[in-house]
Amino acid sequence: MVEMDFTDAERQGVYKAIYGRRDVRAHFIEKDIPDDILLKLLDAAHHAPSVGFSQPWNFIVVKDVERRTKVKALFEQELRRSADMVEEPRRSKYLSLKLEGIMESSVNLCVTYDHSRFGPFIIGRSSIEETGIYSVCCAIQNLWLAARAEGIGVGWVSILNNNGLKAILGIPEHITPVAYLCLGYVSNFENMPDLERAGWLKRLPLSSVVYYEYWGNSDKHK
Amino acid sequence: MVEMDFTDAERQGVYKAIYGRRDVRAHFIEKDIPDDILLKLLDAAHHAPSVGFSQPWNFIVVKDVERRTKVKALFEQELRRSADMVEEPRRSKYLSLKLEGIMESSVNLCVTYDHSRFGPFIIGRSSIEETGIYSVCCAIQNLWLAARAEGIGVGWVSILNNNGLKAILGIPEHITPVAYLCLGYVSNFENMPDLERAGWLKRLPLSSVVYYEYWGNSDKHK
Repeated sequence: MVEMDFTDAERQGVYKAIYGRRDVRAHFIEKDIPDDILLKLLDAAHHAPSVGFSQPWNFIVVKDVERRTKVKALFEQELRRSADMVEEPRRSKYLSLKLEGIMESSVNLCVTYDHSRFGPFIIGRSSIEETGIYSVCCAIQNLWLAARAEGIGVGWVSILNNNGLKAILGIPEHITPVAYLCLGYVSNFENMPDLERAGWLKRLPLSSVVYYEYWGNSDKHK
Repeated sequence: MVEMDFTDAERQGVYKAIYGRRDVRAHFIEKDIPDDILLKLLDAAHHAPSVGFSQPWNFIVVKDVERRTKVKALFEQELRRSADMVEEPRRSKYLSLKLEGIMESSVNLCVTYDHSRFGPFIIGRSSIEETGIYSVCCAIQNLWLAARAEGIGVGWVSILNNNGLKAILGIPEHITPVAYLCLGYVSNFENMPDLERAGWLKRLPLSSVVYYEYWGNSDKHK
């Protein structure tokens, strides 16, 4: 017997977090995240699946303004570099977008991957090495959904240079930064992704990304 | 004003899915997943965050027994290979563990990454290329949590050879398989991860993976 232990409201909550989660860069308000709520989010991340139960993540909570200012400078440097990769008129549109909330958010969070933890032999990582880092991404998504349920917005800043970031946060050579996140209470969550609203790209129909039995077959009865 | 639009029960549902989610290899029961529920899970995955809204994922639903049998053979080959990496007595323990539910589950699902989609320029992927594949992992975690809320277990089989898998599923050269999942209704969910129950590894205390301001600093007041 399956124990269907979710009430309708609880199940609804899961989908609400999934569909209502946004990558937030604006709308942060001036309200601190209490320590116990921050730990609740980190504990949600810590309960992600991990290959071979290796729990290969670390979380660096960054609040210091001086340290954030350095990260912001890193972002600006990478943004300038990346803008040269785009042709007009998309280039101007790209540069007009709000792409981070490093200073305005309440807390920054660097999530890292430690390949050496509990190693060298990790169950399930012997054939596909990258599964270690995939576990860290699952942890990030747990945190993102828990944050949504708490009314806290999360924005992932990926226009950064990882070597620069490692220097700023004193991260050792063998550790890989996976995500740099900005967290804070927000005034509201948009009802669609910023880049969809801005007309940058469209949401693909689900049917276009689902295949049956083998690559390229969209007909489930074939 | 933050719109605190989650009821207590809805918020509770999110944490219940996060803490009650398991990597399932046993306990699958003989009950089909209805098409509409499977599409609900895939749509949850499709609403994950993606770098630059690139939605770089595909989902191949595999039910055919012959095809699954080939994937199972691939697993067994990789398992034998990996067992040589472990010394006794851990080797025997490793080989006694149930590590996949390829044949017993209701549906297999291969989740892939397409680096070329909407490219070459993807917002936010210009500095850290791997963020594309990280998006696919977030989609997997969305699916995993939605499945938990539906009473459906998910097991990630990572003891596989990706080239072999690509051949079996006709996946093109430029596409990367990220996960091979086994989905099905289960009789019950264990209350802790299998590898924790088996005493393979222990859950780390949260405080040991959280740092403040810089790597290695566990004192938030420093």
